[in-house]
Amino acid sequence: MADSEVVPFVLMPPDCLRVLDQTLLPGAEVYRDLHTVGAIVEAVQALRVRGAPFLGIVGAAGLAVAANERGASDDALRMAANELATARPTAVDLSALVHRALEVALAAPEDSRLDALWRFAESVSDERRQQDGLMGSAGAVEIADFEAVLTHCNTGALATGGIGSALGVIRTAWEAGTLQHCYATETRPLLQGARLTAWELTKLGIPATLLPDTAAAMLIGSGRIGAVITGADRIARNGDAANKIGTYGLALAAARHGIPFYIAAPRSTFDANCPNGAAIPIEYRADEEVGGFAGVRWSPAGIGAYNPAFDVTPAELIAAFITEAGILRPQFDNSIPTFLREHQPGAPRTL
Amino acid sequence: MADSEVVPFVLMPPDCLRVLDQTLLPGAEVYRDLHTVGAIVEAVQALRVRGAPFLGIVGAAGLAVAANERGASDDALRMAANELATARPTAVDLSALVHRALEVALAAPEDSRLDALWRFAESVSDERRQQDGLMGSAGAVEIADFEAVLTHCNTGALATGGIGSALGVIRTAWEAGTLQHCYATETRPLLQGARLTAWELTKLGIPATLLPDTAAAMLIGSGRIGAVITGADRIARNGDAANKIGTYGLALAAARHGIPFYIAAPRSTFDANCPNGAAIPIEYRADEEVGGFAGVRWSPAGIGAYNPAFDVTPAELIAAFITEAGILRPQFDNSIPTFLREHQPGAPRTL
Repeated sequence: MADSEVVPFVLMPPDCLRVLDQTLLPGAEVYRDLHTVGAIVEAVQALRVRGAPFLGIVGAAGLAVAANERGASDDALRMAANELATARPTAVDLSALVHRALEVALAAPEDSRLDALWRFAESVSDERRQQDGLMGSAGAVEIADFEAVLTHCNTGALATGGIGSALGVIRTAWEAGTLQHCYATETRPLLQGARLTAWELTKLGIPATLLPDTAAAMLIGSGRIGAVITGADRIARNGDAANKIGTYGLALAAARHGIPFYIAAPRSTFDANCPNGAAIPIEYRADEEVGGFAGVRWSPAGIGAYNPAFDVTPAELIAAFITEAGILRPQFDNSIPTFLREHQPGAPRTL
Repeated sequence: MADSEVVPFVLMPPDCLRVLDQTLLPGAEVYRDLHTVGAIVEAVQALRVRGAPFLGIVGAAGLAVAANERGASDDALRMAANELATARPTAVDLSALVHRALEVALAAPEDSRLDALWRFAESVSDERRQQDGLMGSAGAVEIADFEAVLTHCNTGALATGGIGSALGVIRTAWEAGTLQHCYATETRPLLQGARLTAWELTKLGIPATLLPDTAAAMLIGSGRIGAVITGADRIARNGDAANKIGTYGLALAAARHGIPFYIAAPRSTFDANCPNGAAIPIEYRADEEVGGFAGVRWSPAGIGAYNPAFDVTPAELIAAFITEAGILRPQFDNSIPTFLREHQPGAPRTL
């Protein structure tokens, strides 16, 4: 673990998943060795590990840890898979990868399942790195003209387990020498930008500036940045994209000032069954997240909150999608369905 | 002090200015009795009292307190005026009202100056109440069709010493029975919305909801609000308006969704010498305000911040200005210069 690298996890067969405890960032870098299903579920629920693509790796590795801890019988693995997959009900990657790991294990003889599960976890991790790398390269070419960009929330190694989606593009462009500076929003209410993205940028040595979410429109209008680039949580067939709350406002300001707004996201984020943004369900979170943070309250007792976790940016405000299979441009009504047909989910791995 | 009222100060001749300590809100309502110039300067610098129009009242009352504490000789008053006026260099109302108070005192015989200064402080306070009341009435008529509005930062009694500017309009419309609900942003980085506006709304019994600044664009697009209404810090002759950072983003979202964006501000906020927004100097504040609050840090050490205190909303995004002399509508190139000619600053008081 070089000091300048962000290492969110280490696979340690046959018995351990080592993870960086993200709840202690940026104050302390503490790794936790998880040897049991219980410890992994606790880490997921306490948000020591988070980020949808990264949780897929955690789920796959979790079942390998379970096979070592509890044995690899059908019953033991099914029970462990159920515990792992439901640790965070809304994390689609987590349950999807746990269930794919279970299929892989059940298809093998019992005495080779532990090995098969660790190999599967490694293939998931390798695939994540490869996809992030391809996204990073495609995106770095796309933003090669820009000396500075703005990003939102956390989309780095801490979120994917690879180099990240939007932050992977930013990192790749910086390593290529084209990008000189990254601006990052705080990202209220959970402050993933201030806590995690700022830490990753600092750790990687990328020159970075933090801003309150309120200052983003002025920054975009100031001429200091060439593009806005974020990740996405779900992308509809027509190109409408749900992402962390605040993304829509950034896209509006970018459109006003003629600055391209990019979304970097892998194939798995596109939902072929979702026709448009109106069909994307939006999670509303607890009032307590607003008017305070981490147990400190700023607002008067009893006031309610409007606290959607995501907003939807309409396709017309998006310049392009950066994916592991290249850049998707408007008209998204054409480019996205073609992309979805050519890159089916769960297609045979090339690794 | 009725429990449902917001009372930011009480004039207590001949020796005391009682103020609500805003740094302790919303957790505690503590009044402080200020008997000395030193105590008043400390209260201003520690932000126990803040808000440009309210600081005007504090400045006028402060010189009355000085006359009691130190005597009313020319030298004593000039020295006290200098200490008070420079307590916060960027607070125009503070220095303007301190100097007007000094003129009033120096024009009177020394043995009647203490009385003259308290009468002047009361006239300033009365004028503030009257102007806020007129703004509130004009604005309440303007927004009478809307059941819910969104506001930003703090523009209430705590900021003006009257009923407030934008929040005074909201209060008047609620008391008139037309407005049913007020949404308030947290207003990072200093959280005046979460701390002060939320407290004022709760105190007044106005149904209110707090939101992270990131959720404002989605709220505006949701159909839940009929208008956005804020105050302003400086308004140029062409209608470009500087206000608390984040206002510009709200105006962009309102324009996108065809929702009117109003600014409530008294004549003194209009700067006849400022041709447009580009000529308004913007204060950039300390990095430490971003990535943390009140001594708690969320961001890694050493990261810089982009932290402008204000942004400028271009005139074309503003539906109307609500003033104590009525509503100013586009074209602002015409309506504002006419308003400025008809309402000269420092004109004889009608009270």
